[in-house]
Parts: sequence; C-alpha cells; structure tokens
Amino acid sequence: MPCCDPLGLCQYQTNKLVRIRSVRLGSLKWSLNGAILLFICIMMLWNRKYQEFDLVVSSITTKVKGVAQTHLPGVGDVVWDDVDYSGASQDKNSFFVVTNVIVTKNQKQGKCPEVPSKGRLCRSDKDCEKGAWDQQSHGIQTGSCIKFDVMKKTCEVSAWCPIETKTAPPRPALLAAAENFTVLIKNNIRFPAFNFIRRNILPQMNDAYLRSCHRGNDSLCPIFRLGDIIREAGEKFSDMAVEGGVIGIQIKWDCNLDRLMQRCLPRYSFRRLDEKESNRTLYPGLNFRFAKYNVVNGVEERTLYKAFGIRFDVMVFGQVGSICLLYLSWSLIASLLLWTFVLGNLLLAGRKENGESSTQPPPTSN
Amino acid sequence: MPCCDPLGLCQYQTNKLVRIRSVRLGSLKWSLNGAILLFICIMMLWNRKYQEFDLVVSSITTKVKGVAQTHLPGVGDVVWDDVDYSGASQDKNSFFVVTNVIVTKNQKQGKCPEVPSKGRLCRSDKDCEKGAWDQQSHGIQTGSCIKFDVMKKTCEVSAWCPIETKTAPPRPALLAAAENFTVLIKNNIRFPAFNFIRRNILPQMNDAYLRSCHRGNDSLCPIFRLGDIIREAGEKFSDMAVEGGVIGIQIKWDCNLDRLMQRCLPRYSFRRLDEKESNRTLYPGLNFRFAKYNVVNGVEERTLYKAFGIRFDVMVFGQVGSICLLYLSWSLIASLLLWTFVLGNLLLAGRKENGESSTQPPPTSN
Amino acid sequence: MPCCDPLGLCQYQTNKLVRIRSVRLGSLKWSLNGAILLFICIMMLWNRKYQEFDLVVSSITTKVKGVAQTHLPGVGDVVWDDVDYSGASQDKNSFFVVTNVIVTKNQKQGKCPEVPSKGRLCRSDKDCEKGAWDQQSHGIQTGSCIKFDVMKKTCEVSAWCPIETKTAPPRPALLAAAENFTVLIKNNIRFPAFNFIRRNILPQMNDAYLRSCHRGNDSLCPIFRLGDIIREAGEKFSDMAVEGGVIGIQIKWDCNLDRLMQRCLPRYSFRRLDEKESNRTLYPGLNFRFAKYNVVNGVEERTLYKAFGIRFDVMVFGQVGSICLLYLSWSLIASLLLWTFVLGNLLLAGRKENGESSTQPPPTSN
Repeated sequence: MPCCDPLGLCQYQTNKLVRIRSVRLGSLKWSLNGAILLFICIMMLWNRKYQEFDLVVSSITTKVKGVAQTHLPGVGDVVWDDVDYSGASQDKNSFFVVTNVIVTKNQKQGKCPEVPSKGRLCRSDKDCEKGAWDQQSHGIQTGSCIKFDVMKKTCEVSAWCPIETKTAPPRPALLAAAENFTVLIKNNIRFPAFNFIRRNILPQMNDAYLRSCHRGNDSLCPIFRLGDIIREAGEKFSDMAVEGGVIGIQIKWDCNLDRLMQRCLPRYSFRRLDEKESNRTLYPGLNFRFAKYNVVNGVEERTLYKAFGIRFDVMVFGQVGSICLLYLSWSLIASLLLWTFVLGNLLLAGRKENGESSTQPPPTSN
Repeated sequence: MPCCDPLGLCQYQTNKLVRIRSVRLGSLKWSLNGAILLFICIMMLWNRKYQEFDLVVSSITTKVKGVAQTHLPGVGDVVWDDVDYSGASQDKNSFFVVTNVIVTKNQKQGKCPEVPSKGRLCRSDKDCEKGAWDQQSHGIQTGSCIKFDVMKKTCEVSAWCPIETKTAPPRPALLAAAENFTVLIKNNIRFPAFNFIRRNILPQMNDAYLRSCHRGNDSLCPIFRLGDIIREAGEKFSDMAVEGGVIGIQIKWDCNLDRLMQRCLPRYSFRRLDEKESNRTLYPGLNFRFAKYNVVNGVEERTLYKAFGIRFDVMVFGQVGSICLLYLSWSLIASLLLWTFVLGNLLLAGRKENGESSTQPPPTSN
Repeated sequence: MPCCDPLGLCQYQTNKLVRIRSVRLGSLKWSLNGAILLFICIMMLWNRKYQEFDLVVSSITTKVKGVAQTHLPGVGDVVWDDVDYSGASQDKNSFFVVTNVIVTKNQKQGKCPEVPSKGRLCRSDKDCEKGAWDQQSHGIQTGSCIKFDVMKKTCEVSAWCPIETKTAPPRPALLAAAENFTVLIKNNIRFPAFNFIRRNILPQMNDAYLRSCHRGNDSLCPIFRLGDIIREAGEKFSDMAVEGGVIGIQIKWDCNLDRLMQRCLPRYSFRRLDEKESNRTLYPGLNFRFAKYNVVNGVEERTLYKAFGIRFDVMVFGQVGSICLLYLSWSLIASLLLWTFVLGNLLLAGRKENGESSTQPPPTSN
C-alpha cells in the first residue's frame, strides 16, 4: 500500500451503512425528518421576538400643556401653568405633574413648638432633650417644653416656623383638572447594529394632524391626554390624583427589515408602576417637598409646598429582526457542515456499490 | 456469556467503521475538517465583540465651565455663569446648557387679554366661555372679550400677567458664546462579572495635563469644548443654539483581559439624537420654561424664562472579553466529549484488528 | 423490489452497529455517559444565574428624612430639613444629600476684581483684555486692572459680585450630621415575560415594623440610615462628607418560579461608584452650584451655594428563573430527537437479529 502512516493522514474512515429497501421505514424516516424540520422553522420564526432586544439607543423629550385653577385657603385663587406644576424638572425620561398640594406660607428660621403626633407631647422641660431629633422631627429640639395649643404642650424646636401642620392631602385633589392636560412625547430611536433611525413623529404628521389627532381615533398620535393615559393604565384619575403615583409609558418598537415585510412603528401602552395601598399608613402614592425662597426685609423666608403628583416614566423598548440576515447565515453554516458529511458518504457509497450488497445477509459458511 | 442482561448494561454498542486507505480521500477529509475548524475559530474571535455587552455598572458626573454675556431687551447686560445656564439640574447621566432665551419679567397672578394666535380673536363676550381653556391657553377664560391692542380684541384670562408674547426664539442665539464652554466628564465603570474597575481619568493624567489637554491632540482627554462636540456630531453650533436639541455623548469601553493583549480605554463619539426639523411647526429643538419667584410687597411675582438649549445625554457602553476564559472552558467541554467518543472507538478498533480486515471486500461464497 | 426510486424515498439508511458483550466496556460507557449527563445537569443548574438578566421593569421612589443644624459664618445658625438638603430633585433613580457647603451671600450683577489664582494677577490695564475669559473665570474681563486687596491687583470682570472666594470645602463637613438621616426606598419590579410583580415593601411589613426595623437586625428593611450605607460601602461618612461622592445602592432580585422552590426577595448592597482621590487636584468628590434668587429694591440678587454632597444611585437588577419551564422544554426537544434515533435503530435491530450475529467475528474464508 502506498502510505500506511501512523497519523492516519492517508486514511479515510467512515461508518458502514445498511441500506434497507422498505416503503414503510423510508416514509417513517422522512416524515420524522420533515416534522423536526418544520418544528425548527417554527421555533426560528417564533424566536424572532427575542432578537436584539436591548440594543436600541433612544432619546426622549416631553412637553406638558394645560392650565388649572385652584383655590388655596390663605392663598386665594391661583392659576397653575406648566411652569408651576412641572417645575423645572428636565429629567430626560420622566416628567412630573403636581395633582395635589399642601401649602405652608412664610416660614422663617426660628423656634416654635413641634407638631404633636404619635406621642410627642411633653409635660415639662425634662421631657425634651436639647439637640435631639428623630425621623419625624421638623427641627432640632431646644430642650424646652412649650404650649402648642390650648390643650397640648410639645417640645420646642429650631426649625422653619411655623411648622407644616396638615398631614393628609386634600380630598378631592386640588389639581384634579390636570386630567385634561396633554403631553407631547418626541422619541427618536436608533439601532446601532443596523444604523437604522426612526422617530415617533412620522413624516406624514403635519401641524394640522398634530393639533387634531387623538388616541381614540389614532393609535400613533404622539399627543396624549393625561386622563386617557391613567384610564388605559386601569386607574381612576381623581383617585390617583389625591396621593399621587407612578405611571409607566412604554413605547415598543417592533421593526422588521425584510424588504417584503418592512414595518417599523411604535406601540404605546400604559401601566401603573407603583402599588395602590389599601393600608394607608404604608406610604402610598408619591409626594415630595419643595420651597420658594424669598428675602423680606433682610430675612430669608420660604413658602413650603408638599406636592403630591404623578410621575410618568417613559420606557423605550426596541427590537429589530431580519429573518433573512441572521438565519440565512446560520442556514449557510449548517448547509456547509451537512454537505461535508454528505460528500463523504457519497464517496464511500461509491466504494460500497462495488463491495458488500447491503440487502442480503452476509453469507454463512457452507 | 457472563451477563446477557436485558437492560444492556454489560454491552457496549458502537458503529462499525470502514477504514479505506486512500491518499485522496484522506487529504480531502482532513482539508474539510481543517477548513471547518478554521471557520469556527474565526467565528469565535469575531463573536468576541458581543460578549457581556450590557453587564457594566457605570457612574457619571459632569461639570460645565464657562461664562457668557447677553444683552436682554428690558433687562440689560447680564453675565451668565454655570449656575444660570445649567440650573441646579443634577440629573446623573445628562446635563443641559441654555443657549437661547425669551424673558418675560414681573408676571403676577391676575386677569389680562390672551395672546392672539391662530384664530383666538373675539368680537364680544359671547365668543368667550367662562372657565374654558385649551392646549394653547395661558390661563382660564373669564368670559369677557377685551382689547389686546389697538387692532385686536381677545378673550380675557386668569393667568400670570402679562402673558409671554414672543414665540420665535431670537436669531442669532443669545448665548451662542456657549460654544466655548467646556465640560469635564468623570466616568467610572465596573464589570461585576470580573470585578474589574476603570475610570476615564487615567492614572497618568495630572493637573497640568488636564489644564492643557485638547480633543484635537488627544482622544483620551476627558474635557470637551461644547463647540467641538457639536461639530463632531455633524452640526453647526450657531444653528443648533437657536432652537436647541439633544446630543448623545457615547463612551465605549472595549476591554480585553488577556495578559498578552491587556487594553481597556474609552472611546468618545458624539451624535445628534433628536432630528432637525425642516418644517418648523413640528416642534423643533428643545425648550422648557422655568421661573424665578419673588415676593414684592406681599405679592408673589415671577420672571418667566423660556429656555432653549442643548441637552447632552451621556451613554456608556462596555464590553469585556477574554478569549482564554470563556472559549477555553468551552473547548475543554468539547474535548471531553470528543475524547469519550475517540476512546470508545479505539477500544473497538482493537477488537476490529483481530476481526474483519477493512480493506478487503468480504468474501463471497465459493 | 417494489420501489427502487432514485430519490431514496423508499429506502431507510442507518448505521451498522457492532454489539460487544463486555462488562468492562459496558460499565465504562455507562459511567462516561452518566458523568457527562451529570455535568450537563450541573451546568444547567449553575447557568440559571444568567437567565433573563435584563428583562425587568422597575420603578423606584425615595424619601429622605432628617434635620441638621449648621453654623454658617455670616449667616448664623440654620436648620436644614429635607427641602434644603435634597432640593427639589425628583430624579427617579437617584437622590442627592448636601453634606458640606460654601455660601456666598447677596451677589449682584456688577463689576469687581477677579479672584486671584494660578497666576491671574495683573500690573496694568495692558495685562487685561476686554471681553476675554477662560475656564477658571467667574466673569467677562472689562479690560481694567484693579485692586483686589492691599497686596494684589487682578483684572476687573463683569460678573455676579462679590465673587466666591473660598475654594476648599470646610473641614469638618458642615452637615456631617447627615450620617443619621434615613432614606425609605420603595421599589416595584415586574418581569414582563412572566407578568410577575413584586415590591420590596413586603405584605407583612406594617407601620410598626417600618418604624422600628433596622438593617442590623433585618436585611429586608427598606429604610436605611445613610451612615450605615456609607459604612457598608467601605467608606467613612465624615471623610466622604467633606468633598462628596457617589454611592451605588444595588437591589438584586433573584426569583425562582418553581412551585417547590418559590422565592423572590430583594438583596441590598452598597458600593462607592466614584474613586477617592489621593491627589486632590484631580477633581475629587461631587459638587455643584445652585442659587436662591431674590429681587431687592428692583435689583436681582442671589445667594450662591457651592454644595458638596453624596449622590445615591439606585440600580435594580432582576433575574427570574424557572428550571421547569425553560429546561423542560429543551429536554422535550432533545428527547424527541433522541427517540427518533432510537426508534430507527430498534427497527434496524429487528432486522439485524435475523441477519448478522454481531458477537461472532465474520467468517473468514476457508
């Protein structure tokens, strides 16, 4: 023999095959192969949903419009516009709308009695420790026990005086009219892997369209009435407005790049992200405090606002799929490997034709 | 035979192999195996790009520096420093710079004529509905139709008066000098899976370096001139400054942990994230309103600022690859499985040597 | 033969098998199979950690409570409450607490000498260029060189005067008492793929629990003392409070949906995200400037605050695994493919029983 090398480089080793002529077995084999191939194709088409789920670069800007009027005790009639209820919060994926408020006017740094709550009454100076404070304090104790009102005495504190007294937000919510405010959401997305750009204000949307479009008659309208958002999230605006909350605005982009099926549009959905509280002592809703500061006669004053409101978090999800690009490459690889196998067996079959006939049992010795 | 058990635990079952001595077939087989192995190696090296793309924990702080002077009609010469143009926005991945502004001074709560726009003129009180408002309103209608100027009459509204009149931002932009402002970006990243920490202010960057470094001569300089950022994003600062916009600052960390190829440096790129508007009524640019509040003689006043500006969103992408760690483990697994197969066949080959010689066709019956 | 078709649809082709009765080989084969199967099972259980790592929708709200008193030179005793030290920042995943401050009172727009630093002294008007400024300037130069104090002359600038002079933050930090402040973190998570909702304030946590719980005795307590957070992050509060910094609060949800092993609880960990600076000129810590504006006698004034503080970034990671759901489906697929193979071979084995006996070596020619 020409080369009987130990490394086996001149040898070709393959399986011996038995070929059985049988309609039943042949049909069974091809049926099973067909079923498995169909299953794999269905899995490939279905799994498209999970392609490139997080590789989207998104930019969002929001603009809330609307006005509301409140009657605040001690303050009078006040008109709130977008500056007043949205503040200057330029958080890029989020906007806040005040729906209820407790106002404490003209606070000044000084000493005054702490607000009595949960057992913070005192009887004499011995009950008050100078310099002490806890999580419910509004100031630092001075060590004196002074009169809060005709009935009660509390520890005196250094704080912004007078201290905010009201703890429960007004019912109904003072800015419940915020239900009619609208928000324009501008969203630009880009898929870096495909260098593919889209925005939710589509080319055909002109000024007349945007002034009149409405989520009820057009699911692509980028202007949303706050009341519609809350309702679609399964909540009642007037209830949610009292203590506030968090609403998620989800923008889902499902893009398909195949020429025959090109489609790339946003879908908006809304969901409440915080949980409603049945037990009201477990910190329901969303509120924060801010103040407007002033200097009056050389003395710094502030008006304290405890603002309850709804924070809208905009979340963008994008996926782009192209069944041709990804799976075609996988198919090419699989075909390449399969062809290697088939080629090898064809070469062997050529040899086998000359040798053993696979349908006859090997002869027994005579 | 010792154990002819039905479960087959004492049996070893393997394929029958035909070994053909042929230089042609042997070379063909090894060439195909080599080609497939080379293909797999290339895929492994190329796919390194997609390892651990999203498992990076990042922290960013930014500091803008610079001053500019504006001449505002009715206000005079005003110097803007970082407090004035960046506000107190401490958004962690984003900073905003005011580039243009419309100022309405000394607004007070009261009643005044609405600004006429898009058909909001009236002729008599019947044209004005008390309590009504829409998305373009600045206040709540009182029901009266009053004189706006010599020519026009509009509905009276309860609002912050006088109402902001100017709608188009000044050209050229009032703070176009912001082009020369600079921003220092401090970025710390961590890959939790590898417990690997890096920051963009490298150990060799001392104070003298940071005072003089410049993107033009050093791509690793963490201090950026705003005009350079806009230019690299393909925009003109003086144009973008008029109506504002959104710029994305992308920091890409491509880290390789192999000892021979250790490298972990950031690459900065810039891109405009919002879209320029050809049709100016489709809400181009970026603007928001904020106010400075005051109490004058017991009456609350505010100065309204409609600020146009550029928001810079910092986005950090990180990937860390180590071809040794991940693929070495996969290779070990594959080798283990392959060795099992080879071992089995070697044992069988020992048996076959004594039995059938594979080069001769099986004997035919005499 | 009934169908000798060229396409091979009536043929069933399979490998010829050699069955060797040997206890040693049989045991070896089953041991290796068992070891590989065990290895695959272990890999499946271990890899559960990396399922669905990023498909969690999270909402966070934070509320900081506490008061502190400072003595500011020129200002006097001031009590800081949550409005003063947290501002109105409603960043959704982040909250900031001022720990140190430099105050410059009653700044007005005007002309005053620039603060001398790093060679900015001048001798005559020729050293000062009208309209010039650089990154360390507080205003625009007027072109005059004027007296800063008895010893030095600096260039006059148009700016908010008087210019902030102090550059190094006070030691010890003025608001070091912030160590005792507490923060309540409310976190709601949802896994969209499973439509599974959880929040970190568990159903059994009532008001009494939340008033008394403490990280020391309960790792699930959602109220954290700031000093405990800093300590667990490996830092000393009094040190970090001087120049500020960034702390990451990581909430990890590791959820298992299997009925037998249902568990879904948060784990909190803390880490410093910025780097301590040994060389103090490389911008250590975190600070920003904000101002409170006033109109006094028709002239706008502001009090400038350079606030040093700690920003707490809340990051939520979630993964949900269900070994039954995902791997059961993979097992079913694998079993289906394996059964096809076994079925085929069984059919063949039926044929082989009648044909070649596999234990005898094929007969040699006589």
